[in-house]
Amino acid sequence: MRIGLDAMGGDKAPACPVKGAVMAVKEYGYHVTLIGDETAIKKELQNFSYSASKIDIVNASQVIEMHDPAALSVRKKRDSSIVIGAELLKNRVFDAFVSAGNTGAVVCAATLSLRLLPGVDRPGIAVIFPTLNKPCMVIDVGANIDPKPLHLLQYGIMGDAYSKHILGKKNPTVGLLNIGEESTKGTDFIKEAHIMLSESKLNFLGNIEPKEVYQGSADVVLCDGFVGNVLLKVTEGFADAAAKLLKRELKRSNIVTKIGAFLTLPAFMTLKKKIDAAEYGGAPLMGVDGSVIIAHGASDEKAIKNAVRAAAENVEHKVNMHVVEELQSY
Amino acid sequence: MRIGLDAMGGDKAPACPVKGAVMAVKEYGYHVTLIGDETAIKKELQNFSYSASKIDIVNASQVIEMHDPAALSVRKKRDSSIVIGAELLKNRVFDAFVSAGNTGAVVCAATLSLRLLPGVDRPGIAVIFPTLNKPCMVIDVGANIDPKPLHLLQYGIMGDAYSKHILGKKNPTVGLLNIGEESTKGTDFIKEAHIMLSESKLNFLGNIEPKEVYQGSADVVLCDGFVGNVLLKVTEGFADAAAKLLKRELKRSNIVTKIGAFLTLPAFMTLKKKIDAAEYGGAPLMGVDGSVIIAHGASDEKAIKNAVRAAAENVEHKVNMHVVEELQSY
Repeated sequence: MRIGLDAMGGDKAPACPVKGAVMAVKEYGYHVTLIGDETAIKKELQNFSYSASKIDIVNASQVIEMHDPAALSVRKKRDSSIVIGAELLKNRVFDAFVSAGNTGAVVCAATLSLRLLPGVDRPGIAVIFPTLNKPCMVIDVGANIDPKPLHLLQYGIMGDAYSKHILGKKNPTVGLLNIGEESTKGTDFIKEAHIMLSESKLNFLGNIEPKEVYQGSADVVLCDGFVGNVLLKVTEGFADAAAKLLKRELKRSNIVTKIGAFLTLPAFMTLKKKIDAAEYGGAPLMGVDGSVIIAHGASDEKAIKNAVRAAAENVEHKVNMHVVEELQSY
Repeated sequence: MRIGLDAMGGDKAPACPVKGAVMAVKEYGYHVTLIGDETAIKKELQNFSYSASKIDIVNASQVIEMHDPAALSVRKKRDSSIVIGAELLKNRVFDAFVSAGNTGAVVCAATLSLRLLPGVDRPGIAVIFPTLNKPCMVIDVGANIDPKPLHLLQYGIMGDAYSKHILGKKNPTVGLLNIGEESTKGTDFIKEAHIMLSESKLNFLGNIEPKEVYQGSADVVLCDGFVGNVLLKVTEGFADAAAKLLKRELKRSNIVTKIGAFLTLPAFMTLKKKIDAAEYGGAPLMGVDGSVIIAHGASDEKAIKNAVRAAAENVEHKVNMHVVEELQSY
């Protein structure tokens, strides 16, 4: 298994991508190609011992920064790690590409280089959310912020294929994110999508309210990329704020409460692990003709390692083959 | 101060509205008119002792259920507590109206009966979010799910007036909820709203990412009602799921962790109080010509009491007068 990894992507690049690559090589035996500033990557690699045949470097002289405009930077920075990564994946130099860099640029570069799968009009980013019940896949969380109802149907079919063939779910349920349960609720866009999904072969549950996402009411939840991104970032932001507020309360507390907090730590750590994005690896970019995994910009080395593993699983399980089969059956 | 209260609104009606009304009467000395099924209300009132001159009842033979379609039910159920409440407020039988019932129906009935303030094209529901910093007002969380950019500007002006005159903030900051900081990010709707807000007299910070809401980066955050409702419900849903997950972990834990959890309880209760919607009272329906407060459907008696207090504060602080002044100055 050969994985291409954007060594310049994410808030802690190149340190975390390089360390994550070494971890993935040691733990899973994959071959990793690090793409980025060769000098900087080599310097980071000196900190570790690893099998030299398992890691190589492709130099990229440019970096697309987190705040660069996506489409423009992909056109202008042709020698950036993201553009090179997408191109090398197209040429099958490796089997999958992972980046924690500028999400919009990864979506754009991947779409331009790899093109879309037959039957797909727009790519979508899928994220697995932890819930009280089984994990829930939400598509789209930011690739396509102004989709048509048809795109949501295609996301549904892709999510269904992923749930069946990769997560091993039988007849996965699909829900449409809406602010009410009734089919008459929501914008015209939502209502049209509701009709298309109802008429499809999907195991469509109808509308799913935001709180139901965390209850695990559906295997796949569909939404436009703007709302999906809000859903994702609100969850992160709120979890972060609640943890900070709790810490602040504990600081103010008496010694008994403080001891209590210390003793409760194991339960908190398990909870954190369940919620923590780092555990879930990256988010597959569904719909492009190649395995592309988008990791969180704040990824640490463990998150990168898990994203590399997710990329390998994507390839092993032939996600795209199954997606195309499903799309053709519609 | 005379407050009208929908006794049939919310999941726990009429018990919780009636109990909340008694609490508000005792604690604040307001006069409360309970609107709903007279027999059921009287039965609930028998459980309490209170000054009889402080509570009266207006019978309503119909109830708009939580899942009734809003506009249709307001047209058809003319003798429902919501429609009667809005009409009595219009006729100044009381100073403000509070309902924990069907939100869409309250918005619709209030708009039809009271009409909108001069300079307002659409009403918006404003909710105060707890943050790491100062509280943050988010408009709209569900009155208007498909707004025009101009409506967001009007929400901004109303939020600014509320923050200044009711929350006592000087030169409140206003942010536009978006999935990126840059002004080039987002849908066409967001970009247009960004331009209008930039050109306004508001203290506009530009785009605010979802996580920043909880950091308290802005005093007022603007969004369309669909996204705002997702923001609100995701917060509730996630907090609820995280608490359940933690409880589940604690159940599985050993006795030491369990003791720890018991000792940590005070800090948790403070945190819960900070996050708890019940503490904040209801959400003002901004833009209608009258003081209308929408309480959460899951309101307990304390939440109802706080919503009644919020309604009274709205009247005392002459929110609508200040909103109209601000709107006229633009």
